[in-house]
Amino acid sequence: MEQHAMIAEEALLINGLDVTAARNTIAAIQADKSLARFQFRARNTWISGGENRSTIRDFYGVGREDDSRTMTFEFTNGEPAVLLGDNEGANPVEFLLHALAGCVTTTFVLHAMARGIHIRDLSTELAGDIDLQGLLGIDESVPPGYEQIRIRMHVEADCSEKDLEDLMTYAQQHSPVCNTVCRPVPVVIERAKG
Amino acid sequence: MEQHAMIAEEALLINGLDVTAARNTIAAIQADKSLARFQFRARNTWISGGENRSTIRDFYGVGREDDSRTMTFEFTNGEPAVLLGDNEGANPVEFLLHALAGCVTTTFVLHAMARGIHIRDLSTELAGDIDLQGLLGIDESVPPGYEQIRIRMHVEADCSEKDLEDLMTYAQQHSPVCNTVCRPVPVVIERAKG
Repeated sequence: MEQHAMIAEEALLINGLDVTAARNTIAAIQADKSLARFQFRARNTWISGGENRSTIRDFYGVGREDDSRTMTFEFTNGEPAVLLGDNEGANPVEFLLHALAGCVTTTFVLHAMARGIHIRDLSTELAGDIDLQGLLGIDESVPPGYEQIRIRMHVEADCSEKDLEDLMTYAQQHSPVCNTVCRPVPVVIERAKG
Repeated sequence: MEQHAMIAEEALLINGLDVTAARNTIAAIQADKSLARFQFRARNTWISGGENRSTIRDFYGVGREDDSRTMTFEFTNGEPAVLLGDNEGANPVEFLLHALAGCVTTTFVLHAMARGIHIRDLSTELAGDIDLQGLLGIDESVPPGYEQIRIRMHVEADCSEKDLEDLMTYAQQHSPVCNTVCRPVPVVIERAKG
């Protein structure tokens, strides 16, 4: 009996994701689309020069404020010497690459699970080109952001090459960070009162 | 003599940034615009489910490969329970907010220095709204990324309110991460060979 229970439990995990929980979440959202509305947050404090630190903990989703986190995440932005810093941390444009890598990966793994595809190995290398004349205001015709970001994906899975290509395209189209980068997303900055 | 030297050295720092180094960098780029071309990089490895880890170290800029970093930065993406994870780390869309907060802050501080404005205090709160029907492929008309990101900035500095407003607008327009989010930036994904 115990052995059967273990086999049944293992069968519900694909790529480390709980298939039943995923199905339940999707069914719940289909029944009440407002459950899909999330708000993520970060608070950041400037330290000195190019050094600043964010704390991340609370968010809203599935119709309520989350209370699952027992600790606050902290991340420090810094800059290398050539950008007037002391390598206090990775810099913001590097953190953007980390966010993009993780999001494309998780979206890929999630939809692989939905298709019953088992992934053995998945890694990415990202490179983004940027011309700092934009940031520095030297040439106003140069966009300050990335010109382009390239992702090289290494993946091994129990499916055909065509299935992998389809999944890669689908992950690119459905990744929240990738979509935030590819599509113009409004950023509104306002002064805090008082 | 020693006291004078110390005073002179302190006078060259505004907001923790070395004014002379900044001027020299800008002069060097104006003389040779290719020095402003940077390439930032990240490598990411999937662990399981929504957990994956990036390493960040090398980059290209100012005409050469950087060798200033004595350690590799590592960051772990995770997901909360409602997104099928175990809070192994902040999630990718939260890391994006950290990147955006840091970039707007550093751009603000940098251009404050260029204008001779001394900042006493600077912090931000970010909130981004997202409808996960996009990620989950439940409704293809819903964009998977952020709908909008709002930044509330608290700032104290030795300048007028109008100067602060001007600086806030300038920072928004010249921040590389903010510009990458606001403007459509192409992301190219390709399979690694072999």
